[in-house]
Order: sequence, then C-alpha cells, then structure tokens
Amino acid sequence: MSDWSEHYATRVSHMQASEIRELLKLLDQPDIISFAGGIPDPALFPREEIAQAYQRILGDPQLSAVALQYSISEGYLPLREWLAGYMGRLGVACTPENILITNGSQQALDFVGKLFISPGDSMLVAWPTYLGALQAFSSYEPRFDVLPGENSNRTLESYTSQGAAKPKFGYVMPEFQNPTGTSLSLAERERLLDTAAELDLPLVEDSAYEKLRYDGERVPSLLALAAQRAGGIDHCKVLYCGTFSKSIVPALRIGWIVAAKPVIQKLVLMKQASDLHVSTLNQMVMHEVASARIEDLAANMRRVYRARRDAMLAALDRHMPKGIHFTRPEGGMFVWVTLPEGIDGAELLKRCIEEGRVAFVPGAAFFADRSCRNTIRLSFSLSEPAKIDEGIKRLASILKLEMAEMTHAA
Amino acid sequence: MSDWSEHYATRVSHMQASEIRELLKLLDQPDIISFAGGIPDPALFPREEIAQAYQRILGDPQLSAVALQYSISEGYLPLREWLAGYMGRLGVACTPENILITNGSQQALDFVGKLFISPGDSMLVAWPTYLGALQAFSSYEPRFDVLPGENSNRTLESYTSQGAAKPKFGYVMPEFQNPTGTSLSLAERERLLDTAAELDLPLVEDSAYEKLRYDGERVPSLLALAAQRAGGIDHCKVLYCGTFSKSIVPALRIGWIVAAKPVIQKLVLMKQASDLHVSTLNQMVMHEVASARIEDLAANMRRVYRARRDAMLAALDRHMPKGIHFTRPEGGMFVWVTLPEGIDGAELLKRCIEEGRVAFVPGAAFFADRSCRNTIRLSFSLSEPAKIDEGIKRLASILKLEMAEMTHAA
Repeated sequence: MSDWSEHYATRVSHMQASEIRELLKLLDQPDIISFAGGIPDPALFPREEIAQAYQRILGDPQLSAVALQYSISEGYLPLREWLAGYMGRLGVACTPENILITNGSQQALDFVGKLFISPGDSMLVAWPTYLGALQAFSSYEPRFDVLPGENSNRTLESYTSQGAAKPKFGYVMPEFQNPTGTSLSLAERERLLDTAAELDLPLVEDSAYEKLRYDGERVPSLLALAAQRAGGIDHCKVLYCGTFSKSIVPALRIGWIVAAKPVIQKLVLMKQASDLHVSTLNQMVMHEVASARIEDLAANMRRVYRARRDAMLAALDRHMPKGIHFTRPEGGMFVWVTLPEGIDGAELLKRCIEEGRVAFVPGAAFFADRSCRNTIRLSFSLSEPAKIDEGIKRLASILKLEMAEMTHAA
Repeated sequence: MSDWSEHYATRVSHMQASEIRELLKLLDQPDIISFAGGIPDPALFPREEIAQAYQRILGDPQLSAVALQYSISEGYLPLREWLAGYMGRLGVACTPENILITNGSQQALDFVGKLFISPGDSMLVAWPTYLGALQAFSSYEPRFDVLPGENSNRTLESYTSQGAAKPKFGYVMPEFQNPTGTSLSLAERERLLDTAAELDLPLVEDSAYEKLRYDGERVPSLLALAAQRAGGIDHCKVLYCGTFSKSIVPALRIGWIVAAKPVIQKLVLMKQASDLHVSTLNQMVMHEVASARIEDLAANMRRVYRARRDAMLAALDRHMPKGIHFTRPEGGMFVWVTLPEGIDGAELLKRCIEEGRVAFVPGAAFFADRSCRNTIRLSFSLSEPAKIDEGIKRLASILKLEMAEMTHAA
C-alpha cells in the first residue's frame, strides 16, 4: 500500500470513525436489544404516500422532465414556499429567500462549520452535544469551548477577556437535545440570546426533534425569539436547521436552513460548490408528502414514541439501582444516564453486549474533549415497550454487578 | 440588515457566484438559442424505467424499509458491487471497498479538495479547466498552479526547485474535457503519469463524460494505466470520479469515487460528517436502472449527441469568419472557441443575447486566474441540429460585426 499521510490536509487528522456508526452494525443481530442508534422506526414510514408521489411525478412528462434534470442550488421553490409557511406557523416570519434545502440537517451542520470556521477559530458547544455536529465542525479545525448555560460555570467575561479568541458561533439544540433529551426553558433561551447579543455571537439552532414533543408546552424557537427581538429574521443572527428525517423519512435526505438572506446567499454558493443541489425528484416528492401529511404523520409518531419513552422511564424507575441519575425528556428519542464515578460507559457496553445482549452508546463521544466517561445514551425509538423493559432490566443487572465489583475492589 | 462579514471564515471571500448558473436562467426564455448549460437533454431520460424501479422498491415492504431508512456512508453495497464490475470492464480491477458513492461527481470534487488541501497549499489544474472544480476546490483556499501538459511550458524542475511549495494533487479531465472538449492521447496520459510519479503527486481523474464518445478509439483511464504500473489500485495514487448524471439522469445525484482502500476509508468518514449518505432509495433505483440499461441508454445518447456535435462543427465551418479557432471534440458536450485577441467573450455574450438571442459561456471563468478573456464555450447537448445551425449563424454574424468594429477602431 502507498503511504498517503503526507498528502492529506491537516484536517484529516481530526477525522475519527463514529462509535455510533460502528454500533449500528449490532442492530443486525436479532438477539440484541439495541438502545444505540437514534433512528426512526421504519414501521412508521409513509411508504404508500411516498410511492404515490413518485408515481404521480414520474407519470407526468412535464413534471418528470423537471424532476430528473439539474436544478437550482437554493432548492425546489414550491418546497421552500411551503417551508416558509411552515416556519411562519412556528412563529418565524420568512420568505423562500430565507431558506436553503440541504441533504438532511447533517449537511446544514457541515455548511455552518464551513461558513464560519477557519482553522484555529474558537466555537461554542454544549457539554455534551450532538456527536454528528462535533464531526461536521471538526473538519474545519475549530477549538471547541463551552457554551454558557446551566452545565457551564463560564462567565461572560471569560470569553471577552484579553487574549481570549472571540468565538465564531455557538451550536445549540434547544429541544430534546441529542444526547441528553433535555430542553431549554423559555427563560434559558432568553438568557442564551442575551449572552449571544453581548458577545455578538451567531447561534446555530438545531431543531431536528421539533415535531417529537410528547408532553409539556411548546416553547418558541431561538430563531423566533431572536427575530422578534431584532425586528425580523433578516436582522437577527440565529441560523435554524430543520429536517424531515425525524418527522417523515430520513432516506430522501432533505433538511433546510432558515437564516437572514445574506447568509442564505453565501450558503447557496456553498451548496453549488459542494454538490450542486439536493435531488430534484426527492424534493418534489417531499413537498407533496409533507404538505399533505406532515401533521398527522407526526401525530402518529408521537403516539408511538411517547409510549416507548414512558416504558423506558418506567423501566429505569423499576430496575435501576440507587445513585443512578437519568433525564426525563419531554420529547425526542433519548434518555441520558449518569453512572457512578469510576464506571466507564464503554467498558459497560462491552460487558452488556457480551453478557446481556443489550446495546447503547457510551457518553464520552458526545463531549468535545471526550471527558465524562461515566455516561451513556439510551434511545427508545426502535423497540416495543415490553422489549424496552427487558433491555433495561438486563442493563441494570449488569450495572449492579459492575457497581458491586467496584465496591469490592475499593 | 446585520453585518455578517466579520463572522465568516476566510474561505468565504473566495466563494463567487457561477456565471454559468446565472446564465442557466436564460434557458427559460423560449426565443433564446442557448449553447450555455452543459446539461443533458431531458427527452433522453429513461423516465419509465426509473418510475418502475421506484414502484418496485416502494411496493415491497422489506425493500422499502431499507430504502427509506438511514444507511451506511460508503453507499448501497449492491450498487458498489455493480460499479466494481463496471470499472473492471474499463480495465480497473477493484472491489466495493475501493468505492464511495457521492452526490454526483461535484461532491467527489468537494471531497478531494477537503481531503488534500489546507489553506495556502498548492494544487495543479489545467488552464482552462472545469469551473465547478475550481469552485469546489476554492472552498479549501489553495493556490492554483498549472498542470504540466501541452498547454503549459512549465518544467518539472519548476515544481521542485528550492522554495517551491510541493503541490498536493493535480486535477485532470482526460476525456472530452469541460470546457474544451479535447482529450489526452495515450502518450499524453503516460507522460502525465511519469510527471506525477516524479513529483509524488496524487492525480484526481474526472471522468464525467466517459460514456459520451462519438468517434475515435477508447483510451484507458489514468486510473487503469496507473494501477497497471503500480500492480493494483491499492498501490497507485490516482482517484477516479464517475457519475450517472451524463449517462442516465442528473437529478438522482449519484456519482462515485474509486481509489485505494485507505483513501476511501478517509473519504467515508468525510461523507459521514458531511451528510451521512446518499439517498438510499435513489441508490437502489440507480442500481436497478444502471445494471439493466446503462449501455443501451448511453448508446442512444451518443446517437443523438453525435448528430448535434456534427451539426455544430458543420455550422462553425460554414458560418465562422477566418481566424476563429475551435476544437473538434470526439465526445462530450462542448466545443471551445478562441476568438481574436481583444474580443472579450463576456462582452460578446451581452451583445449576442441582446441582438442575436443566442447564449454561451464566456471562457474566462474556466481559468483559475480568469485570464484568456477571448474564449467562449459552446454546448451542443440541448438543441436540435437545425437550431444549432441557426444559433451559430447568429453568433457568427455578431462576431463579424465585433471584428469589423475592432478593425475600424484600430
């Protein structure tokens, strides 16, 4: 084999394989109960509606000539028009010129990294935060710092003191965060916007799980609040990333960014240079399915996932030993478990797979510095309630063994 | 509006709107004869076969659960297996582990830029070269230098002399290059590989128009030649970028990279961080259509485009004034015209649209330094022969006026 290392850009040394991705392979073994992947249940996919949309578009000579041809980088105009209305119903007044269609929200994250980060720039994330965001941003070689908030004791002054590099942007998932499942309250969102204003810090709001609220009141998005403060979306510095992956299907790879027009204009150039445009046909299909069905499809998903969330919290209450803390999310797909100090999530996983045939994601990967090894992420989206109870029971029994052995060793 | 300039990464200053893209908007005006966009004729799209493939996959509960779900970043295995066989028939022995599926070959170009270029690195391109490649690479802030070859009088020593930055890779389109339509002969390919070996320079081979050869003998790809020299693809330093956009349809956004396994492993991580994977459903559909029909679909495209290429060359012979040079491509979609010194392709375009209702792409955008303004690119892919003759006649008559005015002014 040739040696390639001297040829690569410096960024390549920051690219690491995802632990989640390796773990997804475990889903293929039928005796494993997996709480690992944060993926939707394919039984909830609107297969027939999607098939009908493809058939209708490809059955029409005029529509199909458009659907199969190159198209503009901004995205299919009727889809952007529909999204402008959808965002309006979420309290964000905007036009199609405020919207770029992306290959899922992962590409939106890649693009904001590409837009804001030069090598060595500082940027702010929660601790822990979404692993895929860390991977996307890492390609642009930032230094990660802690976003101010309840999990941080950083003062505002520490970001602006002499010698401190001004952070380029902050990334935040205010609703049912991956991995913790927790949300920011209205007061926390207002405080974050205050801080961002003090630092003149653009915020990137990842709203991937927005449709999956199972209880509690809806809280306005950061973009809605910021636009209200600034007198309109074109005057505020929040970029909003949405996706159909969690509300309809992932595999059409369609997400979107909403932001001030000058930012969208730059992102359109980036889209053009990166891959020209999202599949025209898939955008047309998604427009048909979303405009006709998104609310009742999401309602059905909420009904199914709420029962699974309830089952997981009940099982954790029932089976977990004392001293184990876990979140009680109002939506999304995840519960975040903090283990006793000294228990390593990755070690626990190995034992759980071997001895208990149950899987999850160790928490360290969600920290930019890989700290906090005594954490794990559980996803409840893929399993029936009875299976969830059985899986948590297995996990808890192995955890008890670990804790007993740790006490014994000490 | 907020001021965003201080927030952006340094790369954003290199991002410019594509002249081609702005020109594509002209295609919507029915009285314009456009030789601008290098896009396929939608009348040649296999609409029914594509519709049937979507229907068959989405009609099957098992297949559709896979088709609509998240999938691996490498790409759909049966498609990569089929592509490994396809590449084998082109003289490149490889396995699915040598292949990554991308969103068209534009994403492949973005990824090779991301893989090799740190800001300020030197890289080599032809002069002129594909505009979309310049856009993709520019995001990573290289310095562009001239690829050795017939259009360059650079010596090998000039790249390796003291103080010269070692170039990170060379980008080349050996078949029916966009924009010139010309191809490298076997001897030129061998010389380029010699030079690359001397410089230890990875080469990126863009093979977008490979299926569109209208006459002449097929010449082995750079990858095939390099793999033969090195004793296998895993030992050579050529990356090959292919696409279905020019042989089947563009809008499913499916291309591929073939390279040594360690390089593909890095690119898979990049794909995962960038947008997870190409639409699973689209990959499955493309696998069905390509494996059943690619050869006869491409044969039909060749039949249609060959007649248009012939019509354009005949029209140029018939209408162009003396002193106008143009290429005679054996394939692809483009003819490259060199105008007399002092005539600016962009100025000519304005006059052609206003006075002649005929459009093309000014050549300067295809040069990394925007030099050589007295060039234009003509695409023959979208117009019937009679319309091509009429368009070239209009172009020639305005060009004659320009030349007469220039002589008069001098």
